[in-house]
Amino acid sequence: MVIVLKKADTSRITSETVSTRLLHWEVGTKPKKQSDTLVREEPLEIRVRGKSIAVTMRTPGHDRELATGFLLSEGIIRQRDEVVEIAPCLESDSPENTLNVFLAPTVEIDFARLTRHVFASSSCGLCGKASIESVHQHFPPIESKRSVAVQTLITLPNRMRAAQQTFSKTGGLHAAAIFDLEGNLLALREDAGRHNAVDKVLGWGFLENKLPFDSHVLLVSGRASFEIVQKALAARIPIIAAVSAPSSLAVEFALESNQTLIGFLRGKTFNVYTHPKRISPGTKVPFQRRKIR
Amino acid sequence: MVIVLKKADTSRITSETVSTRLLHWEVGTKPKKQSDTLVREEPLEIRVRGKSIAVTMRTPGHDRELATGFLLSEGIIRQRDEVVEIAPCLESDSPENTLNVFLAPTVEIDFARLTRHVFASSSCGLCGKASIESVHQHFPPIESKRSVAVQTLITLPNRMRAAQQTFSKTGGLHAAAIFDLEGNLLALREDAGRHNAVDKVLGWGFLENKLPFDSHVLLVSGRASFEIVQKALAARIPIIAAVSAPSSLAVEFALESNQTLIGFLRGKTFNVYTHPKRISPGTKVPFQRRKIR
Repeated sequence: MVIVLKKADTSRITSETVSTRLLHWEVGTKPKKQSDTLVREEPLEIRVRGKSIAVTMRTPGHDRELATGFLLSEGIIRQRDEVVEIAPCLESDSPENTLNVFLAPTVEIDFARLTRHVFASSSCGLCGKASIESVHQHFPPIESKRSVAVQTLITLPNRMRAAQQTFSKTGGLHAAAIFDLEGNLLALREDAGRHNAVDKVLGWGFLENKLPFDSHVLLVSGRASFEIVQKALAARIPIIAAVSAPSSLAVEFALESNQTLIGFLRGKTFNVYTHPKRISPGTKVPFQRRKIR
Repeated sequence: MVIVLKKADTSRITSETVSTRLLHWEVGTKPKKQSDTLVREEPLEIRVRGKSIAVTMRTPGHDRELATGFLLSEGIIRQRDEVVEIAPCLESDSPENTLNVFLAPTVEIDFARLTRHVFASSSCGLCGKASIESVHQHFPPIESKRSVAVQTLITLPNRMRAAQQTFSKTGGLHAAAIFDLEGNLLALREDAGRHNAVDKVLGWGFLENKLPFDSHVLLVSGRASFEIVQKALAARIPIIAAVSAPSSLAVEFALESNQTLIGFLRGKTFNVYTHPKRISPGTKVPFQRRKIR
């Protein structure tokens, strides 16, 4: 494939969405360039009295409400007059993603409790890392040149579903699965949290000494957020596929990490958002078993 | 309604699921008691060198893998031999939900960086709070005796969807909406993160001085996790409805918080998991406008 989807192809169209270029693929036909809309995903840092108390990956818009609702849920504020002002932090590198909440002097905050209790979550995507660049200092972009055949790729969702048992009982679990490039399922994990399902798959590979997953495809049952793609990078996974839509930051991150990101992998069609070079259009030749008798 | 769904009705059937009793309601018929299976949701605390570095709400099972995958994603471990042992922390109040990861002495951990960077996320449900009881010390159970009519309840998903605009463009957003007991939509917010959509709705109410939401219904587009129910409690919301399934901890928490929790609200049917006393089966009498001329 020589088609390249460049960074310049994404542009902001509303506060909540961006447009992007992608390759829409239907098995048996040539892939077509299309435009589509992605949900924006960006980190919001909430600061109180000069201290950073939370970073959450959110869709921009209504950020003042988000910060307020967070402080309410955490039990820090109770009355309207306890919030004096909410304003972008102009000293930040990214003022649109950093809010200072100015609270009345009467509001007591136990920062020790807050930093202990409002604590880590693996679903905290960017986790305070300043930028995609700083993630790449720790996890350099992928170098793998391996590719997956279209005919193999489209079989993966059914293989994953066949292996999912809990889902059919409850309808409430996300799944993540790691496949080799021939489409063999190596491990499947389920969890109410998508990021946990991915962590379990990666942890399995680590403990079984099977990393790096550099000739592998990660498939997730739902949407692909930044966090999923970042976790895949940590395990050196070159190809990530999701049954639903990717977020804007997932696409941006995958582009810069040299990862192939596939979305809406359903039936005989899928969209490729980044690095389509790892999709091989050739039909897979079925293995001819030699007669031995 | 005199039917009560007691705590004793939930019991563990696998590591990933529990069975629960519920009332299945179809408009125009009597509600029926049924059993169903819920996805388990419980906090997992990950400790390294005696320090708590993360609490994540997860579905139990493959916890060692989850802890390992988390440490890999965070860039703390890279080689298999850096993980010496992973074992439940027997000193914890809840050893099955607390893992000690013993790392090789050569692994350097910058705890300051970790607690700063692996930081807060509002999707961190329990957030280190030891138990449901400790949440209730801060947010006491609901006292509201108000109820919603079945005929009103079943109209809410369509009212929410009609108000959702971004969703139809991208397919990638969760929605949360707050209604009064007559079914009027007061506010709707969307976000790639479900918890953020709820925080935005609550923050709107707080900033507009409309709290407490004690005669209101919160509707979420997807599943109902513990976190959603806890946030609703902070805003004093007595009735929470979800289009999909609730988690085990959401049901347990709602039961103890005296909150009515509804799931699978679709078409003319829904399930009530806790406190059905706030569902009024009577048909709503349409408001008769007097002719004034």
